[in-house]
Amino acid sequence: MTTYKLLLLPGDGIGTEIMAEVKTVIDWFGKRGVASFESEQDLAGGAAYDAHGKAISEATMKLAQESDAVIFGAVGGPKWDSVPYDVRPEAALLRLRKDLELFANLRPAICYPALADASSLKRELVEGLDILIVRELTGGVYFGSPKEIVTLENGEKRAVDTQLYTTSEIERIARVAFDLAKTRSSRVASAEKRNVMKSGVLWNQVVTKVGKEEYADVALEHVLADNCAMQLVRRPKQYDVIVCDNLFGDILSDVAAMLTGSLGMLPSAALGAPDATTGRRKSMYEPVHGSAPDIAGKGISNPIAMIASFAMALRYSFGLVAEADLLDRAISSVLSQGLRTGDIYTEGTTKVGTKEMGAAILKQL
Amino acid sequence: MTTYKLLLLPGDGIGTEIMAEVKTVIDWFGKRGVASFESEQDLAGGAAYDAHGKAISEATMKLAQESDAVIFGAVGGPKWDSVPYDVRPEAALLRLRKDLELFANLRPAICYPALADASSLKRELVEGLDILIVRELTGGVYFGSPKEIVTLENGEKRAVDTQLYTTSEIERIARVAFDLAKTRSSRVASAEKRNVMKSGVLWNQVVTKVGKEEYADVALEHVLADNCAMQLVRRPKQYDVIVCDNLFGDILSDVAAMLTGSLGMLPSAALGAPDATTGRRKSMYEPVHGSAPDIAGKGISNPIAMIASFAMALRYSFGLVAEADLLDRAISSVLSQGLRTGDIYTEGTTKVGTKEMGAAILKQL
Ligand SMILES: CC(C)[C@H](C(=O)O)[C@@H](O)C(=O)O
Ligand SMILES: CC(C)[C@H](C(=O)O)[C@@H](O)C(=O)O
Repeated sequence: MTTYKLLLLPGDGIGTEIMAEVKTVIDWFGKRGVASFESEQDLAGGAAYDAHGKAISEATMKLAQESDAVIFGAVGGPKWDSVPYDVRPEAALLRLRKDLELFANLRPAICYPALADASSLKRELVEGLDILIVRELTGGVYFGSPKEIVTLENGEKRAVDTQLYTTSEIERIARVAFDLAKTRSSRVASAEKRNVMKSGVLWNQVVTKVGKEEYADVALEHVLADNCAMQLVRRPKQYDVIVCDNLFGDILSDVAAMLTGSLGMLPSAALGAPDATTGRRKSMYEPVHGSAPDIAGKGISNPIAMIASFAMALRYSFGLVAEADLLDRAISSVLSQGLRTGDIYTEGTTKVGTKEMGAAILKQL
Repeated sequence: MTTYKLLLLPGDGIGTEIMAEVKTVIDWFGKRGVASFESEQDLAGGAAYDAHGKAISEATMKLAQESDAVIFGAVGGPKWDSVPYDVRPEAALLRLRKDLELFANLRPAICYPALADASSLKRELVEGLDILIVRELTGGVYFGSPKEIVTLENGEKRAVDTQLYTTSEIERIARVAFDLAKTRSSRVASAEKRNVMKSGVLWNQVVTKVGKEEYADVALEHVLADNCAMQLVRRPKQYDVIVCDNLFGDILSDVAAMLTGSLGMLPSAALGAPDATTGRRKSMYEPVHGSAPDIAGKGISNPIAMIASFAMALRYSFGLVAEADLLDRAISSVLSQGLRTGDIYTEGTTKVGTKEMGAAILKQL
């Protein structure tokens, strides 16, 4: 039986509460005997800053490097709004993505039928929605240099960020998108701003080439990123897989997630390249939602996105597809039974807290 | 009586048809005797490329420089999808913005009551919506250099775009936003990605300072651009004025426009700084929608956004506020009468073509 090493980083805010619930789920799968999981837990984000003045310590980074999957809660909160840029809570996330080379960010936007009415869009536009956004996660304006603020001779400041992409960076994320599309409806939309950005021109060329030469059976469409954002609002079901760069992916995936009405439900995966010899890939899983400092500590947060993130880990890091399906089904069942945390509560359903929701999913398993 | 020089640039696709309608409106206001308008018309975009191999000629740029307002239709279409980057149709727009120093882009997102059902959002979320997006238009990743694609030693290509902002660029757009907010509900939301971008850090600092020192009576809120996109989908009415950089403004204003269900109705203004001696400012007005090549030449396009753009010219370039109000009311009346072009047609209303819609607005005046 394979043993997988997990690093649990609850982070800040509701991170701790939702991590407690996913832990019971991890234990359950461990006892089931399909694989064994060795978990360590550590600090990240504001919690790490409070403890040792950095968003993530070198020791924690070492654990992350040695793990098969990092299970990440959420970071940040008003408490750390004015800490220096380099040690702000989000720096933990960015460092993990970069140092583990997690270049492929998978962000599903699924509308759970039981929650379609929670969407701000008309029901018929989102019912059955199932989009997968594939976001490049280790390049672009997030990491290009120069990235600095300098003081000019006239006393003014000038801030610079650098959007940068190379052929191979675009090729590898395009392949991830095309491969995933083949397991779905074989359609990819590639979003960029080729009419304004040179990186958009190169993005467009490389995705076109990879599509033509390696995935002739997948339909490829190009869409300008601003138009893509519009189309997501207008008629989201026209999309299946959307591939885009780091910054556009940040925004488009948030729009797509919000459309579903299921924000508290949506997981995400960040994957590295498979190792040449072992075939294993580094990975990190986290909910799409944030640390929600306003409701932290009250025991009312929704643990489903966190638990669904572990389902993605089962699927993408451990190859346990049947187990992933089992867990996803347990989540759907609990929703069908009418259980709801406050964020997704509507009249006629049963309001439960974080722990009860976690327990209900466990019981369903 | 003041004489204003207008340069009409219909551009491509439906640009020509909608420009024909706004011309009749301009003539009407000219005859009314509050101001006189001298119009010239010229080529831009694909049409200019076909005529002289450039998206806009030097002669046209000279006319634009000498004009009080450029009235711009729309550019682009599949015909020019593979022309070289430097002469693509959009280059006309970018050159006009940059050379005329039109740094302030005003993009209202208004939900016309008669059209609230056309929104993909639930009626109650958009009814009465009235947001003004103030987008920086001459800086950021659109114009920063380096902006290039280079071939590396290993044969790969590397594309670079540069996001760049200085203190004074941010100050002047912030002032435009705060000044406009004072004429509305005195609330500004400033959107950036300070958690990832140094330009976001500087943006946040400068907007905060301008707000504190010069506009203590305007409420200022900061929001991360990705969250802003989400919030626009979730609960758009929470916003009044949103100020943001060029690229975020491109996406956020498109999302906001699409929410209203009134895309074919929305105008925009691009303004320069007032001249130190004359007080006049350079300006350009254009519809938010594009050149819609699929319906061009059929006489079915909606001229309202183009006509409403001239209403903005009356308001912001010529100080003819009463006339602007008159024109805006004429548009609303025609809608209340049930007249609709195909893009906004719903059962029970009367479908009309481009010319009939233009004529109806003129008659209403
Ligand atoms: C927290 C922040 C740095 C992050 C990002 O911008 O990537 C977040 O918005 C996300 O989408 O994961
Ligand atoms: C046509 C294009 C260059 C332009 C932009 O990106 O600014 C358009 O999308 C807009 O918003 O006016």
